[in-house]
Amino acid sequence: MDVRPIGIFDSGVGGLTVTGRVMQVMENEKIVYFGDTARVPYGSKGKDTITRFSCQDVRFLLSQDVKAVIVACNTASSNSLDYLKSTFDVPVFGVVEPGAAEASKITKNKKIGIIATEATIRSGAYEKEIKKADSSIEVFSKACPLFVPLAEEGWCNNEIARLTAEKYLAPLLEKGVDTVILGCTHYPLLRSCIQSVVGENVVLVDPAYETAVRVREYLNKNGMLREENTKAEHKFFVSDTTNMFDRICSEALKENYQATEINIEEY
Amino acid sequence: MDVRPIGIFDSGVGGLTVTGRVMQVMENEKIVYFGDTARVPYGSKGKDTITRFSCQDVRFLLSQDVKAVIVACNTASSNSLDYLKSTFDVPVFGVVEPGAAEASKITKNKKIGIIATEATIRSGAYEKEIKKADSSIEVFSKACPLFVPLAEEGWCNNEIARLTAEKYLAPLLEKGVDTVILGCTHYPLLRSCIQSVVGENVVLVDPAYETAVRVREYLNKNGMLREENTKAEHKFFVSDTTNMFDRICSEALKENYQATEINIEEY
Repeated sequence: MDVRPIGIFDSGVGGLTVTGRVMQVMENEKIVYFGDTARVPYGSKGKDTITRFSCQDVRFLLSQDVKAVIVACNTASSNSLDYLKSTFDVPVFGVVEPGAAEASKITKNKKIGIIATEATIRSGAYEKEIKKADSSIEVFSKACPLFVPLAEEGWCNNEIARLTAEKYLAPLLEKGVDTVILGCTHYPLLRSCIQSVVGENVVLVDPAYETAVRVREYLNKNGMLREENTKAEHKFFVSDTTNMFDRICSEALKENYQATEINIEEY
Repeated sequence: MDVRPIGIFDSGVGGLTVTGRVMQVMENEKIVYFGDTARVPYGSKGKDTITRFSCQDVRFLLSQDVKAVIVACNTASSNSLDYLKSTFDVPVFGVVEPGAAEASKITKNKKIGIIATEATIRSGAYEKEIKKADSSIEVFSKACPLFVPLAEEGWCNNEIARLTAEKYLAPLLEKGVDTVILGCTHYPLLRSCIQSVVGENVVLVDPAYETAVRVREYLNKNGMLREENTKAEHKFFVSDTTNMFDRICSEALKENYQATEINIEEY
């Protein structure tokens, strides 16, 4: 048994959608969340910058005595996971491999679409993991840089969001994909808009749930679950105080938490 | 005479539109540009974070031995200019006061609209400067967070850009503004779209030109112009290497420059 918290970090507040899944799958676990709201987004930036930022994020979480780290951010998972795993002496989990594995199980026609940030698409990480699961699957990718600002503006299902989704998803639909991975933590907020554009026959995969299941399996196997019946207390940290945290928090977690501001550049 | 370069910083590559104006107004001056592409955008972040980042940006420029600093970023100008002026022993120029003064001269019906980032609007800086110029002018503001990602996606005049501009500008047009300040360095890239939405009778003001004129006046008055006929060489620095620099550079400066990457967190 290990009563220490699970650490989760994200480039901003999008990782709260992953946090919601972790709470649902492991309701007994304490969580320390860090959102790098001062330097958000990571998805338009280069691999070295993403890795440098991610290392600081992990160092902050380690200062909070976490027993494991979940890289909720798809951009950091796809660009920096190997580096983080080899650098830090703590189990580190990304969202890409679980998402890729799930989509590979779901697809029937063996055509999967990935929508994500530019840096995630550029990394080729989802494609690599899908090919590992089943090399006969065809993968089609599309970077969707407008989706995050649309979700943050709260324009999740208006005409502008629909036209944007149509424009981004058209090339994937032309290829006949039957499964699309929501490869960015913000995209579940646009889920109903995206679903209406791709149609009911295309399955949307959010890697968060499968990631949470994997982490639970690992902790269970290694005797690291927090087997206590006292209420699990969670802590939330950000690098810039923004009202975006409150809005996405109540949307993703159906509960209001207070976030504490820290200076991430000191880690 | 002072042959040292003028320093210009911005949260990212948008400030290249200001740099273009500075080159046009002072073709003899050397420029050192820094774009904080690793932490872009500033416009969605809090005042303290914006000021901390801006101080690092100025310290980097000072390490390049600049004789003056232009805060090209409207968000930094409106949130941190006073702090920068009182902290650093170098003349520091913002874009807000020149833009506000120009708009105040242009408006006939004394109704000015401001479009800018959330942090610029929240600061109230443009409103304050306009009221100083003419307290009878009415000011109407609207934050337009989708404009920067639209410009960066290259969607400057498609249906999505037009619908977005219509949605953002409708409340200003309802108030009957005859002048609109483009209060973010990226917005000139959307100029023709915005102009078509507001109509030909509304004047769009880009603060960059007036800012460059002010800086020239100051340098001239203080005997600090670089009065040499040798070619002025410019230097460009970014905190994250991105192809966005190349794209906006060739669009804003009609010339290609190489940018050198630095780690801004060391300053």
